[in-house]
Amino acid sequence: MTTLGLIGAGVMGRALAQNLADRNVTVVVFDRDAAARSRAAEDSRLIVVPSLGVLLGKLPKPRAVLLMVNAGRPVESAIADLRPHLERGDIIVDGGNSEWRDTQRRTADLAKEGLDFVGLGVSGGEEGARRGPAMMAGGSEAAYTRIRPWLEAIAARADDGTACADWFGPDAGGHFVKMAHNAIEYGVMQAIAEATQILQHGLGLPYPVMKREADGWAAGNRASYLLELTSDILGRSDGETGRPLLDVISDRAGMKGTGGWAVEAALSLGVAVPTLTEAVFARTLSGQPERKSVVERLGAPAKKGDAKAKTDLGDALFAATLVCYAQGFQLIRAGAAVHGWVKDLGRAARVWQAGCILRAKFLTDITAAYSAEPELPHLLASPAFAKIVAACEPAWRRTVAFAASQGIAAPVLASSLAYLDAMRTAKGATSMIQALRDGFGRHGFERVDKPGTHHADWS
Amino acid sequence: MTTLGLIGAGVMGRALAQNLADRNVTVVVFDRDAAARSRAAEDSRLIVVPSLGVLLGKLPKPRAVLLMVNAGRPVESAIADLRPHLERGDIIVDGGNSEWRDTQRRTADLAKEGLDFVGLGVSGGEEGARRGPAMMAGGSEAAYTRIRPWLEAIAARADDGTACADWFGPDAGGHFVKMAHNAIEYGVMQAIAEATQILQHGLGLPYPVMKREADGWAAGNRASYLLELTSDILGRSDGETGRPLLDVISDRAGMKGTGGWAVEAALSLGVAVPTLTEAVFARTLSGQPERKSVVERLGAPAKKGDAKAKTDLGDALFAATLVCYAQGFQLIRAGAAVHGWVKDLGRAARVWQAGCILRAKFLTDITAAYSAEPELPHLLASPAFAKIVAACEPAWRRTVAFAASQGIAAPVLASSLAYLDAMRTAKGATSMIQALRDGFGRHGFERVDKPGTHHADWS
Repeated sequence: MTTLGLIGAGVMGRALAQNLADRNVTVVVFDRDAAARSRAAEDSRLIVVPSLGVLLGKLPKPRAVLLMVNAGRPVESAIADLRPHLERGDIIVDGGNSEWRDTQRRTADLAKEGLDFVGLGVSGGEEGARRGPAMMAGGSEAAYTRIRPWLEAIAARADDGTACADWFGPDAGGHFVKMAHNAIEYGVMQAIAEATQILQHGLGLPYPVMKREADGWAAGNRASYLLELTSDILGRSDGETGRPLLDVISDRAGMKGTGGWAVEAALSLGVAVPTLTEAVFARTLSGQPERKSVVERLGAPAKKGDAKAKTDLGDALFAATLVCYAQGFQLIRAGAAVHGWVKDLGRAARVWQAGCILRAKFLTDITAAYSAEPELPHLLASPAFAKIVAACEPAWRRTVAFAASQGIAAPVLASSLAYLDAMRTAKGATSMIQALRDGFGRHGFERVDKPGTHHADWS
Repeated sequence: MTTLGLIGAGVMGRALAQNLADRNVTVVVFDRDAAARSRAAEDSRLIVVPSLGVLLGKLPKPRAVLLMVNAGRPVESAIADLRPHLERGDIIVDGGNSEWRDTQRRTADLAKEGLDFVGLGVSGGEEGARRGPAMMAGGSEAAYTRIRPWLEAIAARADDGTACADWFGPDAGGHFVKMAHNAIEYGVMQAIAEATQILQHGLGLPYPVMKREADGWAAGNRASYLLELTSDILGRSDGETGRPLLDVISDRAGMKGTGGWAVEAALSLGVAVPTLTEAVFARTLSGQPERKSVVERLGAPAKKGDAKAKTDLGDALFAATLVCYAQGFQLIRAGAAVHGWVKDLGRAARVWQAGCILRAKFLTDITAAYSAEPELPHLLASPAFAKIVAACEPAWRRTVAFAASQGIAAPVLASSLAYLDAMRTAKGATSMIQALRDGFGRHGFERVDKPGTHHADWS
């Protein structure tokens, strides 16, 4: 493996560079910011250079340059800076969270000059980048083949020992899968937040008990990185005040946009991701100042404990989590079908088994489900997961009912259950909607007994 | 009032032309389709012409031409056809359901040639167009002033006698309010569909009893056009088979896109409209073939009746309906703030009082709430509606819990309740999300006790 150029020595870029160095890859690093360069130079294995020109001069041809800069304008200007100096056959890899449509545009644009562009989704945060991230690549297969040794060297390892790095199709195939990953992450985090909210405000439990419960949620195959982190958080105190950490953190959540992009993509592809959307809007709502006025006028609803609710939470959370994954997989499949990306959902499941935020023991089972049945129409239609959901169902229903009765907002737990119920209802409520639309707008409806568009006689 | 040109004599165009003729407005009508022209010519008061050239020749200057063609390409090509023949001061009015960003673009584009463009949202379906629609206009105030007499002549009348036609600000102000109207319509229709589904599949009631219940939902101030139509539908038989109408209508719902546009707008404006989104995705989901696989593998959940649930439904449906309206109003306010449109939400409420699909008795109360308190931060924070919601709350909670326990998909009833509960929780679940994001990605969090972005020590 030859030398790799890396632009952007922020937290993620530096961690990836060190990970590459661990694998004996020569990495030439440039960052516009002198302070970032100095920090990178603390690791003497990295060749930190003061300019793009020096960086390019040190790379053997054909060159490969990995961008680890923020999505949007920084990626755009890094490409603009590089472009005049690159030659046919050189590869630019964008390892940021770029919007997939930008990646499509950039790929087509650079291809005109014979330059290869790889949109690379990198998940795992700083720790993942340093020790082994999960990576989802898109671009030409030839370009992927060239950078693959680097990626496989530094990637996390799935249960079967394969590297958590894979190719997901041309142009934006990788960034799209990463976007779905992040949208699932929004859903699962919100589900966890709701379950802990029920423990705290529905049942009035103190943090040590909450932590024990959260440990129970992660039993056996349900173990996941996010639940591990949840347990850690529930046991933590604030370094400054000594109060429980969660008590000092405001409830205004931030976000970076990938959740919203996933909703937009789902809308335009015609794929239902209601639960992932609830999670996006839960964050939006958390920051809206008008909340205060409603709290003041309506007050908080009365809350009462219920011992049963506590033991139900694990099943409810696991079922809701599976629905979040299922919606994300449906989104990937729809995107792949329209854009010519890789349709094998087992590949996404495998690449998420380690290194990324979504890593969880049950991803091995999801991989197995999609491997056994590549055309599986829906994750919850697999025999294994249908069985799990059926087992979780009574407790899940009780939990949603409990949250509704106690005034605990649980939009993801409730939406995921409603999604399942809509999916499994042979004839759903939308007949009424069709009738209403024909009634007021003569939009017509389909019939159950013959094809075509029909109208009732409204005269 | 002088002569108006009208292009597009489809269902809506013809109905509006006849409505204008009723008010003694001279209307010159052109449609590319000869059959549509013939149908229009059946009303001898309309001057139906065989070409755009003839139409333009018959209009006094400055001219006003109303387009009643489908959104998208048809509007685009009608404008392209008209443009070379128009002169400074002429007005094009687009009465279709155009996407608001298209309206912004077209307004700016035509302004370069001194042409005025009015984006006009028209609601009420064929019946409304014929007898009195609600109309939401955007564009220059001067242009609105010129067309206002026509609009006010044909519009429906609010309770206070004012015409249900108003100006909502420059360029897309009108089409944006119409989009919010339609998104609310998605939400309310889905809520109604869920409530009738609970009657039918949760409680096993026959159609005549369902109809009686639906009539009860519309008691007093809760009366609305959509509930009137619901009752009508529940009493109808299919003309061909004699079976109840709803039994022959498939549950695959269609849609035209305005719901999705509203979700996209909300995402980009940072306004939470989770419930309206659930309604959009409920339609998406209704058409997804993978539903079948889940029905086959999981089967339908067991259902049992509960007498209490029946009497609860009216309150649940009304509260959910109010949440749909509230989310729509928040969207309008956010759009107006960013794009310089009319911020007075009472104006939207007033214009919806009659003629449109959302017309309902309680819109008078909503208008009053926003008139009394123009800066009212949220509809549910108004004293009147806070009281109504509090009264509906116990039954609403029982209904959501009942649907969850019975396996009836009620995403809008559940999401609207979760929205309210999130709005009224002084410290919500998102502290956990902030902690998780800092834990895996060092994204930082806000604290409750001081400003700035903070991190926990995760080492």
